[in-house]
Amino acid sequence: MKKHNFYAGPSILSEFTIKNTAAAVENFADMGLSILEVSHRSKEFVAVMDEARALIKELLDLPAGYEVVFLGGGASMQFCMVPYNLLSKKAAYLDTGTWASKAIKEAKLFGEVDVVASSKDKNYTYIPKGYTVPEDVDYFHITTNNTIYGTEIREDLDVKARLVADMSSDIFSRPIDASKYDLIYAGAQKNLAPAGVTLVIVRTDALGHVDRPIPTMLNYKTHIEKDSMFNTPPVLPIYSALQTLKWYKAQGGIAAMEKKDKENAAILYDEIDRNKLFRGTVVPEDRSIMNVCFVMNDEYKELEGEFNTFAASKGIVGIKGHRSVGGFRASLYNAMPKSSVEVLIDAMKEFEKQH
Amino acid sequence: MKKHNFYAGPSILSEFTIKNTAAAVENFADMGLSILEVSHRSKEFVAVMDEARALIKELLDLPAGYEVVFLGGGASMQFCMVPYNLLSKKAAYLDTGTWASKAIKEAKLFGEVDVVASSKDKNYTYIPKGYTVPEDVDYFHITTNNTIYGTEIREDLDVKARLVADMSSDIFSRPIDASKYDLIYAGAQKNLAPAGVTLVIVRTDALGHVDRPIPTMLNYKTHIEKDSMFNTPPVLPIYSALQTLKWYKAQGGIAAMEKKDKENAAILYDEIDRNKLFRGTVVPEDRSIMNVCFVMNDEYKELEGEFNTFAASKGIVGIKGHRSVGGFRASLYNAMPKSSVEVLIDAMKEFEKQH
Repeated sequence: MKKHNFYAGPSILSEFTIKNTAAAVENFADMGLSILEVSHRSKEFVAVMDEARALIKELLDLPAGYEVVFLGGGASMQFCMVPYNLLSKKAAYLDTGTWASKAIKEAKLFGEVDVVASSKDKNYTYIPKGYTVPEDVDYFHITTNNTIYGTEIREDLDVKARLVADMSSDIFSRPIDASKYDLIYAGAQKNLAPAGVTLVIVRTDALGHVDRPIPTMLNYKTHIEKDSMFNTPPVLPIYSALQTLKWYKAQGGIAAMEKKDKENAAILYDEIDRNKLFRGTVVPEDRSIMNVCFVMNDEYKELEGEFNTFAASKGIVGIKGHRSVGGFRASLYNAMPKSSVEVLIDAMKEFEKQH
Repeated sequence: MKKHNFYAGPSILSEFTIKNTAAAVENFADMGLSILEVSHRSKEFVAVMDEARALIKELLDLPAGYEVVFLGGGASMQFCMVPYNLLSKKAAYLDTGTWASKAIKEAKLFGEVDVVASSKDKNYTYIPKGYTVPEDVDYFHITTNNTIYGTEIREDLDVKARLVADMSSDIFSRPIDASKYDLIYAGAQKNLAPAGVTLVIVRTDALGHVDRPIPTMLNYKTHIEKDSMFNTPPVLPIYSALQTLKWYKAQGGIAAMEKKDKENAAILYDEIDRNKLFRGTVVPEDRSIMNVCFVMNDEYKELEGEFNTFAASKGIVGIKGHRSVGGFRASLYNAMPKSSVEVLIDAMKEFEKQH
């Protein structure tokens, strides 16, 4: 049976990415060797790394002065690398959920942290607004998409401080004005590649302003100076990332992705709002187009397990909500075809008729 | 043409590992999804993680009190994680090459470092002996196999301090007495898996003795307490690692690997010693069975490029020596079949006849 992959991450990748990765595991770049067993210093892999970095610059329209590196360790490692490299005295953070909170916790090891606003009071069901970012902070950190709670900041904020963004779960889902950001990071396992690599985009003149010694591997400069090849990078995840980037370009770039993502999210949110069994958990204006969180209305609460089973019978995978929210979460990353969203919507309609 | 993969890393993996990984990229655990796009929290992947950790304990015969975790970031990240977690005041290091020197550099950020001995005086062509490890150090760090220079410590040292070993390029090439070590780490991309994951084996009572705050992701305890699933682990590399571990077990375990590795190394070193064109670069008693370094004798030096081309014409890949040594390096990791070593030896013999 055809599976419809709504996992929150690691998550659906394009068929193009999967097919080409499978082929490279058999025979990479016609070398007669698997991508699993080739040197990262081979000219064939160096070409992959170079093309992937260049395509990111192209697709996100990065201005001069920005560099792109692929690091290991996951976005969670960035929670400490960001303050290690950028926090001299004080940083501002916006608390919009679990991952933002974890980033705040790490920053506190390195200096003073001003949490300018938090939506914890309402279980992170909205994005705080109307806060002020102090001008004397080293940077302001935001999480643009909150995978667990299904909220999203879909605009490039204007702040006077350097802006740092964790875009793990919504990068490449809309064109951005990169010049507004000093550092962007993103675990690859949503809109880019399989787990095991983290994308970091950094304005190089934001670096070098802290006094503390930085361990070599935790210093962004190390990786920039060596063209993201200081040590052995995660070869296969980067190869897969390149396939996804090529697919984005062939599909019409990031603007085309945004159009499709918005349509997918709109039809699903419409059904949630229409269907008597379900309701969304997030205030409408802050709803994520990547992670759609919904629960059963109180009078139907006991049907939750049954709907999970029913959905599974239709080939729907990964819609169980995170324990912090409960209910359901349908993740609609860039590779999600509209046909799979329609299968989910049809299942919701059919289940509603049965009850 | 059949390729013979002598890369130093990322490097040859068993056909079993490659075949099963390719199959999982198409369809993992009969889920109807690629291993590239499944949640690390799916019961199918949790089973992979659990089995891989258990098999490492079994194959290396780890005593009680040791834990196994898979981390991102590469062995280079361990150069700072080890002192972050273990260095209170002073550590001892043995300087046996490029990677040992890099580990020493990082440790100096965290405390006093006593380099008890170095073979730098002779371009790291031997393993220092007869040194004394001070008893008051927090730990003694060694690099068991020096991938670049082709030297190896093939015994479990008796020292009074805690023993920390970088076994990136020779783990699983011999049975070890794990009780002699407090921490072992190894980048996976030689004897285990594709690049993107690092294996760490740690005696848990060695942890928790330093006063400094440790960032969450850099703290070994974080990963141990969450069964190596604190954050999204590198899913595919860990799946591949499991395949390699299963293959080791089916082949008769690590003792069987050692027997084969020793045989492969012996026939190649014999040819180097016999052939008038070549000579080994390492003193015989410290020669690595993983990385065989050799150069052309002075009177044939100008034939180096020609031999590289000649070897390539036989399907031999990756024998160009590291720039620190020059000449040639044939890496004979566990997955290397004797038939490939014989192809190299035959090429050396044939080339000798031509000159």
